[in-house]
Amino acid sequence: MKHIQNNPKKNVRAMLSAFHAEHSDRIQLDLTHKIIFQKVTNQVALISGGGSGHEPADFGYVGAGMLTASVSGDLFTPPYPEAIVEAIKQTDCGAGALLIVKNFASDVEMFTKAKELAEAIGHNVELVTISDDHSIEDKLTYKKRKRGVAGTVLAQKILGAAAKNGASLAELVLLAETINNNLYTLGVALESAYVPGSDEPSFTLTESEVYFGVGIHGEKGYRKEAFKSSEQLAIELVNKLKRMNHWQPNNSYAVLVNGLGSTPLMEQYIFTNDVRRLFQLEQLTIPFLKVGNHLTSYNMHGVSLTLLKLVDSNWANALKSTTDASHW
Amino acid sequence: MKHIQNNPKKNVRAMLSAFHAEHSDRIQLDLTHKIIFQKVTNQVALISGGGSGHEPADFGYVGAGMLTASVSGDLFTPPYPEAIVEAIKQTDCGAGALLIVKNFASDVEMFTKAKELAEAIGHNVELVTISDDHSIEDKLTYKKRKRGVAGTVLAQKILGAAAKNGASLAELVLLAETINNNLYTLGVALESAYVPGSDEPSFTLTESEVYFGVGIHGEKGYRKEAFKSSEQLAIELVNKLKRMNHWQPNNSYAVLVNGLGSTPLMEQYIFTNDVRRLFQLEQLTIPFLKVGNHLTSYNMHGVSLTLLKLVDSNWANALKSTTDASHW
Repeated sequence: MKHIQNNPKKNVRAMLSAFHAEHSDRIQLDLTHKIIFQKVTNQVALISGGGSGHEPADFGYVGAGMLTASVSGDLFTPPYPEAIVEAIKQTDCGAGALLIVKNFASDVEMFTKAKELAEAIGHNVELVTISDDHSIEDKLTYKKRKRGVAGTVLAQKILGAAAKNGASLAELVLLAETINNNLYTLGVALESAYVPGSDEPSFTLTESEVYFGVGIHGEKGYRKEAFKSSEQLAIELVNKLKRMNHWQPNNSYAVLVNGLGSTPLMEQYIFTNDVRRLFQLEQLTIPFLKVGNHLTSYNMHGVSLTLLKLVDSNWANALKSTTDASHW
Repeated sequence: MKHIQNNPKKNVRAMLSAFHAEHSDRIQLDLTHKIIFQKVTNQVALISGGGSGHEPADFGYVGAGMLTASVSGDLFTPPYPEAIVEAIKQTDCGAGALLIVKNFASDVEMFTKAKELAEAIGHNVELVTISDDHSIEDKLTYKKRKRGVAGTVLAQKILGAAAKNGASLAELVLLAETINNNLYTLGVALESAYVPGSDEPSFTLTESEVYFGVGIHGEKGYRKEAFKSSEQLAIELVNKLKRMNHWQPNNSYAVLVNGLGSTPLMEQYIFTNDVRRLFQLEQLTIPFLKVGNHLTSYNMHGVSLTLLKLVDSNWANALKSTTDASHW
């Protein structure tokens, strides 16, 4: 697999430089620490980040009403604590900082260390983890493994709207936990990602197979199956999510259909159409629907489906509220 | 190559249904004629379209300050004149309609026929073609073949801003011609597109080759070459465009780097960074830069580079002006 790159070690900084050039009228770049940020006043700073390769996450969500800063690591590798601390120093206006972390052990470790370092120099910092990936198969050993994946973007948006409206750090922590408890994502791959610096994909599929429940770094899923149709994928994912959600007719959900990198937008919308029809059969309503490449797995062919149960009537409005984040 | 689809004949309508569901608060759908549109008052209606497979073009650009309507054909097949006429009837508020057509023979034929049909029932209609693809090699027979590709999106945005500001149909025709005369695009593929319904790609590349000058339907390019780096691609495309542009130090360009479908955003930004450095060496300025999947070739791996010479000082502002089009 060919990759448009020069020196792989410089990929992330080259990307951030170009992104900053595109958006220099509204964001700032700390190239040393690989931070994209906006200065804020009178609000809690929302900071997210993680390994690169998931673009437009997270730098594409830095903007008024969403994230205050993103900290990028190398490909599929979390940023160092020192860089995260620098992001806190750049954006904490005195109201504190909330670290929104996708639930992977190495990410949580780095952000937790950063929290400690920042607290030691006087910042008020809280950390919340997003663990929306419900890729579990009851009888397998990784039953409780809940990774942070595309649902993170919905959480970032609702938290961003709340922070802009003056929510306190404690209120945002509670809100994040409530969102996370109602956030469900499952992904399916038709083809593995092929990333720079790795000769082999992390899993292989035949010309007729799909893989349900894959992770965003190529983590294996819960079942391979012969591929038949978009409808088949939608039925599998919706049925799995139904078992966990215990939904009732007239329940409302925000729905995010996320392309994993190389999935044509046409295919994403065809899949979305199948999800919508299943929701109609279940008599569920979708006050908010979003489709596109939001948190990718480099160039994986596949989609993920995220459902957020709208237990709070404000959430749909928060999702629809304006932001100048480039990729929301 | 697996594709997320059900019945291929229903792909486009399924896609449009889901897109409409996502954006039903601001756009309308005519599913019979595969039209996405907004009602406008006191302005010329701007209508574009063409074969599907180039998403988010063109429906993603329907919105205040950009297109009034898009008309979708089947995959890589232009819409029928009757559907285009229907779009004119739905959106011409009396100020007339401008058809913005990518310069492919079959598209021009269908839109020209629609113009005649609409004029016969009393509409004031003009047609402009965009022919930004400068994929020419001096000594080859297709020297003068200028296809309409990603630069179309920049033209749609500037024309949309002008129409919203009250420009007349005649003024918009003149503006479109001026834009087109200053619009240059060249693409490069690392891998062909693989589209539903076609067992074979239109060209094949080895694991080490790239193909300069490809079209958006898999049309062959002007040269295959061993792939070395992002910088190599940027140098080739910028040098070719330089020969046609005769630019001078301090000339200003709007730059669009367009992903062709399966190109990771990271690779698009790395390429953009190389283009920026070459522009700096040439002492050119970039008041407007945009990066992303804007006019794709289904799932082709590659990028196109569009330069718009900013001979009119209003154009950069028009490009930066607000629109509610979903994918600008």
